[in-house]
Amino acid sequence: MSEFLDQCRHILGWSHVLTEAHDTHPYLNDWRKRTQGTAIAVLRPGNSQEVAQITQLCHQHRIPIVPQGGNTGLVQGGIPDQTGTAVLLSLRRLNRVRQIDVANLTMTVEAGCTLQQLQTLADQANCFFPLSLASEGSCTIGGNLSTNAGGTAVLRYGNARDLCLGLEVVTPQGELWDGLRSLRKDNTGYDLKNLYIGAEGSLGIITAAVVKLFPKPNSRVTALVALNSASAALALLNRMQNLSGTNLCAFELISEYSLELVQQLLPELTPIFQENFPYYTLLEVASHENFDTLQTQFQEHLETCLQDELLSDVAIAMNEKQSADFWKIRESISEAQAKQGRNVKHDISLPSSIIPQFIERAQTALHQQFPSSRLVCFGHLGDGNLHFNVYPPTDSKAEEFEMIETRINRCVHDLVHRFNGSISAEHGIGVLKREELQRYASELELRLMRQIKAALDPLNLMNPGKLL
Amino acid sequence: MSEFLDQCRHILGWSHVLTEAHDTHPYLNDWRKRTQGTAIAVLRPGNSQEVAQITQLCHQHRIPIVPQGGNTGLVQGGIPDQTGTAVLLSLRRLNRVRQIDVANLTMTVEAGCTLQQLQTLADQANCFFPLSLASEGSCTIGGNLSTNAGGTAVLRYGNARDLCLGLEVVTPQGELWDGLRSLRKDNTGYDLKNLYIGAEGSLGIITAAVVKLFPKPNSRVTALVALNSASAALALLNRMQNLSGTNLCAFELISEYSLELVQQLLPELTPIFQENFPYYTLLEVASHENFDTLQTQFQEHLETCLQDELLSDVAIAMNEKQSADFWKIRESISEAQAKQGRNVKHDISLPSSIIPQFIERAQTALHQQFPSSRLVCFGHLGDGNLHFNVYPPTDSKAEEFEMIETRINRCVHDLVHRFNGSISAEHGIGVLKREELQRYASELELRLMRQIKAALDPLNLMNPGKLL
Repeated sequence: MSEFLDQCRHILGWSHVLTEAHDTHPYLNDWRKRTQGTAIAVLRPGNSQEVAQITQLCHQHRIPIVPQGGNTGLVQGGIPDQTGTAVLLSLRRLNRVRQIDVANLTMTVEAGCTLQQLQTLADQANCFFPLSLASEGSCTIGGNLSTNAGGTAVLRYGNARDLCLGLEVVTPQGELWDGLRSLRKDNTGYDLKNLYIGAEGSLGIITAAVVKLFPKPNSRVTALVALNSASAALALLNRMQNLSGTNLCAFELISEYSLELVQQLLPELTPIFQENFPYYTLLEVASHENFDTLQTQFQEHLETCLQDELLSDVAIAMNEKQSADFWKIRESISEAQAKQGRNVKHDISLPSSIIPQFIERAQTALHQQFPSSRLVCFGHLGDGNLHFNVYPPTDSKAEEFEMIETRINRCVHDLVHRFNGSISAEHGIGVLKREELQRYASELELRLMRQIKAALDPLNLMNPGKLL
Repeated sequence: MSEFLDQCRHILGWSHVLTEAHDTHPYLNDWRKRTQGTAIAVLRPGNSQEVAQITQLCHQHRIPIVPQGGNTGLVQGGIPDQTGTAVLLSLRRLNRVRQIDVANLTMTVEAGCTLQQLQTLADQANCFFPLSLASEGSCTIGGNLSTNAGGTAVLRYGNARDLCLGLEVVTPQGELWDGLRSLRKDNTGYDLKNLYIGAEGSLGIITAAVVKLFPKPNSRVTALVALNSASAALALLNRMQNLSGTNLCAFELISEYSLELVQQLLPELTPIFQENFPYYTLLEVASHENFDTLQTQFQEHLETCLQDELLSDVAIAMNEKQSADFWKIRESISEAQAKQGRNVKHDISLPSSIIPQFIERAQTALHQQFPSSRLVCFGHLGDGNLHFNVYPPTDSKAEEFEMIETRINRCVHDLVHRFNGSISAEHGIGVLKREELQRYASELELRLMRQIKAALDPLNLMNPGKLL
C-alpha cells in the first residue's frame, strides 16, 4: 500500500494525496451528515491526464475508486463504505472552462466546475445555462451529469442529460475517451454518452463535458396560485401549457402543510393569501419579450383560469424582488421541514395525469397505518416529480424511526410501483436506494444493467456497491 | 430449415411467413433501389409477444434477425445481406396506439405505427407530435427510434431520442423488456432506453414506445431570406435565436445552386427574389399567440436584421398556402437533385459556428481535385446539419462514379473529422457508412461499442453486419 501511495504522490504531488483524518474528513462525510466513509486516501488530480494515470494505477493494484464532485449527493453515492479498501477521487481541481462557443451555443467545461460557476459564465456571455438546483453553489457539473440532476428548470429545458452534447470519460482501465462533441445531431453508433450520464460513476469517470447554452430570456414573471385540490393543480398545468406554450418554465406544487412550515420559518414572507388553501403552485413564464408584454399576457391567461374556476386566488409578482420572494418560499421548504424534525423522504415521479389520484391513495394508505403521520408534499408537478415526505406519528419514539421509515417507504413505493412511477426521480440510487431498486426493478432490467457493468468494468473497480 | 419455418408458421400463421420472391421482394429491396437482400423468410408478427416468440426461436436455431420498419432507411440498415442466412422481421403489423394521455402529454404506440399516423392522432387530440421528415407517410416510429431520426423540427424539439420517454424491447434472447415509462424524470439505473435508440436494431428489437406530445402551437409564420454568404446565414441564425427565443423552430439553409435545381423542377414556385444570391434560408417561428401578433413580431425582427445588413432580402409568407410553398421549395431539393443526375451524398454535422469556414474549405479542396464538380449544399443549419452533396465532374464517365465517390467522400469526411464533426448526422451507419465509421471513430470508442454489443448479443444475431 505504501508503494501505491508513493506512486500516487509521484503522479499528483504530495499535497494532493490526503491521508490524514483532518484532511480527508470533509470528503468522506456524507452531505446529510448521516454516515462517514473510510478510504486509503483522498486523491485530488488536477487534470484529465492525471485522472487517467491514477485510474491506470488503481487498475494495476486492483484498488476501487469512488469518484466525487461537490459531495452534495443525497443518496450516499459519492462517499466510500467503511471497509477502507477504496480511494476517493475528488474531481474538484478539474475546474477549467475549456471553451465557450457563443455562436454554437455550447460550452466545454471540466467536471469540477461548480454549477454556479457555469451559470455565471453563461450569463456573462449573454447566454443562459438553465440547470438550477438548491446546491448549485457547491455541486459540480461532473456530479450533476453522473446523477442526471433535475431541479427547477426541467419543465422547459430538461434534465442534466438533455443539456449535455458530449463527454470526456476515463474508463475503468484508465483510458481517456474523447467524446467531447459539440454537435446537435450525431448518429454514429451506440449512445455511450447517455450510458455514462446517470451511471453514478460506476462505469467510468466523467472528466469534462460539452453543455448546451440557450439564448437568455429577456423577462420572467412569477405567480403564486391558491387551489382547492391537487386535481385543480393538474387542470391548471394543462391549461397553462396550452396558453403559454414553451414560455411556461416552472410549475411547482406546495401543499398547505408545506406552506405552514415555511410560515413558521419565514413569517415576514407570508401570508400571501387571506385564507388557507389545500394546495398552492408557483408558476413562472419566461420569454424573449419585454417584462410588460409578458406580464400582461400572463395576467390575461391567469384571469381566464380564474374565470373558469381552475384556480381560487392568485398573486402575480410585480418585480424581480417579489419573484425572488415567491421562490424563497418554495426553496425554504426543505429547511423548514428539517426544523420540524426528522421525516421519511421520497423523491418520486409519476405520469402527471395520475398525481392527484396517487396523492389521495397514498395519503389514505398512510393514515390507515399511521393515523397521526403528517405529509409534506411539494415538488416539480410540471415534471411529475413529487417530494413526498412523511413525518412519523407524533407519539412515535426516536428509536422506532428506522422501523417506521421502512414501513412508510414500503407503503409509498409500492403504490408508486403500481402506478408505473419511479422511486428515484432526480436523486439517483447510490447506497440509500439500492435495495429499493433491487426490489422494484424487473429481473431482466437488473440483468441487462449488470451485463453492461461487467462488460465495461469487469473488475468492479468503479464506485462498487453503488447503484447495482 | 423447414422445421424452423414450420415453427414460424405455427407462431404467426401461414400468411405471415413469406418465402415467395414476389411476396418478399418489397421487403428485401433497398429504399434507394441500389441493392437487394436475400432472406430465409420475411416474418410478420402481429404483436410484441409474437416478436418475442420468433426471437426465441431464432435464438434456439442461431438464425440472425434483420428488423425492419417502413424500409425507408438511407444506409441499408434494414435489409439483409445476400447470404440468405437471416430472416427479415417486419414490424409493420404492430401498429396499434395503446394509449393517449393528454393530461400527461404522452402517447404509447407500437413500433409499426407510421410517423404520419402519430402526427394525425396527436393533432386530433389537440396536441402536437413534432417529429417530421420526408418519408413520414411510410416510415415507422420503431425505425425512427432505431435510427434516432432527425428531420426539420430538431432545432426546437430535438431528435427522435429527445421525443421518447420509454421503450418496450425484445432482447436477442427473446425476452420482453417493459421499459414503457411515461415519466419525465427517472434516475433508477443505466439509461437502457437511449442504448436501444439509435442502435439500428443491433441490440434488440423495439416493439413499442412512449413518446412526448406538446401543446399545439396556435400559429406559425414562415419566411424566405436571401443572403450574401454562409457567414451571414450563421449571423442571422444567432440573431434570430436571441430575438425569437424558443419561437424559432426552423432554420434551413439553401445554396444558390440548390435553388437553381428546384427552379428547373418547379418553375411556378420561383423566383421569389428579383436577383440571385449565394444563399437562402427558410425560417419559421411558431407560438401560442395568434397569427397576426406572431407575424408582426417576426416582421419587426427581420426588419432589424435587414437594417443591420444581416440579410439582403426577405419574403414573409402571408398565409398557410405561402408557407407551404416555401416548404415545398426546401423539400423538393432532393427530387430536383435526382433529376439532375447521380451525385455523392453526405449527411454531416458540425458545430454551427464552424459551418461557414467548413463550406469554404471543403469547396476549395473539392475544386482542387475536381475543378468542374458542383456542390448542392443545403440542410438544417440550425442543428449544424448539412446535406453536402457533390456532382462529379461533368466530363466524368458513369463507370468512374464509384472511384470518384470514394475520393470525394475522403475529401469531405476528412475535413469533417478535422473539424470535430460527424460523418452521419441523422441517417445512421447501416452498411453504407460502416467502413467510414471504422476509419474515423477512435479505437477506444469502437472497442466500447463492441463490448456492449458482445454483452447484450453474444451470439451476434441482431442485425449482424450493420453499424459495427
